[in-house]
Amino acid sequence: MARRSVGRPRLPVLDRKTIALAALDLADSEGDSAVTMIRLAKHLGVAPSALYNHVSGKDEVRLLIQDVVMSRVDDVGLKQVVAGEIALDEGLRQWAYSYRETFARYPGLVPLIATLPVGGAPATQAMYESVAAALAAAGVPMRQIMPVIVAFESFLFGSAMDVHAPADIFRSAPGDDEAVTPTLRQALDAQPRSSADHSPNPYANPPFEWGLKSLCEAVMKLVDGKE
Amino acid sequence: MARRSVGRPRLPVLDRKTIALAALDLADSEGDSAVTMIRLAKHLGVAPSALYNHVSGKDEVRLLIQDVVMSRVDDVGLKQVVAGEIALDEGLRQWAYSYRETFARYPGLVPLIATLPVGGAPATQAMYESVAAALAAAGVPMRQIMPVIVAFESFLFGSAMDVHAPADIFRSAPGDDEAVTPTLRQALDAQPRSSADHSPNPYANPPFEWGLKSLCEAVMKLVDGKE
Repeated sequence: MARRSVGRPRLPVLDRKTIALAALDLADSEGDSAVTMIRLAKHLGVAPSALYNHVSGKDEVRLLIQDVVMSRVDDVGLKQVVAGEIALDEGLRQWAYSYRETFARYPGLVPLIATLPVGGAPATQAMYESVAAALAAAGVPMRQIMPVIVAFESFLFGSAMDVHAPADIFRSAPGDDEAVTPTLRQALDAQPRSSADHSPNPYANPPFEWGLKSLCEAVMKLVDGKE
Repeated sequence: MARRSVGRPRLPVLDRKTIALAALDLADSEGDSAVTMIRLAKHLGVAPSALYNHVSGKDEVRLLIQDVVMSRVDDVGLKQVVAGEIALDEGLRQWAYSYRETFARYPGLVPLIATLPVGGAPATQAMYESVAAALAAAGVPMRQIMPVIVAFESFLFGSAMDVHAPADIFRSAPGDDEAVTPTLRQALDAQPRSSADHSPNPYANPPFEWGLKSLCEAVMKLVDGKE
């Protein structure tokens, strides 16, 4: 969808969706700091003044980037929780898998989006509403809802980055003193691979599964009013 | 420690520690992609050829950055677990707090370090050995050790970024349709602040506490052989 200027700049039909996708493309390939109005205009093959007809500046472009990414996170399971069709932990699992997969495509954007306000980003707000509504519908106390959402998100942001970690990330290099890491090497030799794992890092799924299960179990304790 | 060139370049006593701190300073202020040998030499006020006497190139500099950050993570609690002086969950808590605090100083470096191999980074390897040894000493099955470490780390990387999230990150902006986020707004109004929280984001501690407690409880179940 993102249009690149090839030869003479041509004027695409410019709208906020086109701008959002081009900005995401630019941020993904060259880093968040590359997303200036001038570079974005060049990337789209339009004059900067044309951009300003649709967005007020760089801050709004960042919100568009956040919103186009967050709109890809699947919240159907969460809505099924609200409708009473599936259990909370199953809805959270479906959402968490989609969230990790979505952000695994843009690991370099995680620090930006993790600290970007959601105000002005309607798809992002709708996603958080879905999570909050599912937790509330299942009976999680209101004061626990934001801590649970943020804790899940912290885990999911980190897990998205791990999807791209190299398989040998914990292995020693020639010249390292292996005598000082006996337990680490034993643990690595025993480390499970996931047979069903399609992520670039073949060891990414077992930690994700274990952490997600642990957090889901802790949420269900909040529902049961046990703590 | 990092020396900047002021006026005529002077030649500092160059060693790997000085290079590591200068590279960390440069990566922190201008991003990982700014750390080239030429810019690093300029930042240190030395000739690039002087740098090459100590490091082989950019890849090794990145390992130095990782190692200088990881060397600041406190693993004393983990060693006390191995010595049988404190319980595993208490050792993990102390380590996790130090890990989050260390990385919260360099949130922009999280994506780099989350995917950088530890080979050639001795302080980093020593830290992982401490975690693995504590888990093994407490009785966590060997095949669960790497999944537990990676799940904790995913959560800690995300939590470190949340320390810098603005306090109003989930609040709507003028012009947003608040009618579509009723539960989110209720949850935000009920959200606990931490009185003892010194982090820039006053809401960062309750989610961190809840997530950490949840993961620690799940680890203790592995120790007890319950799953």
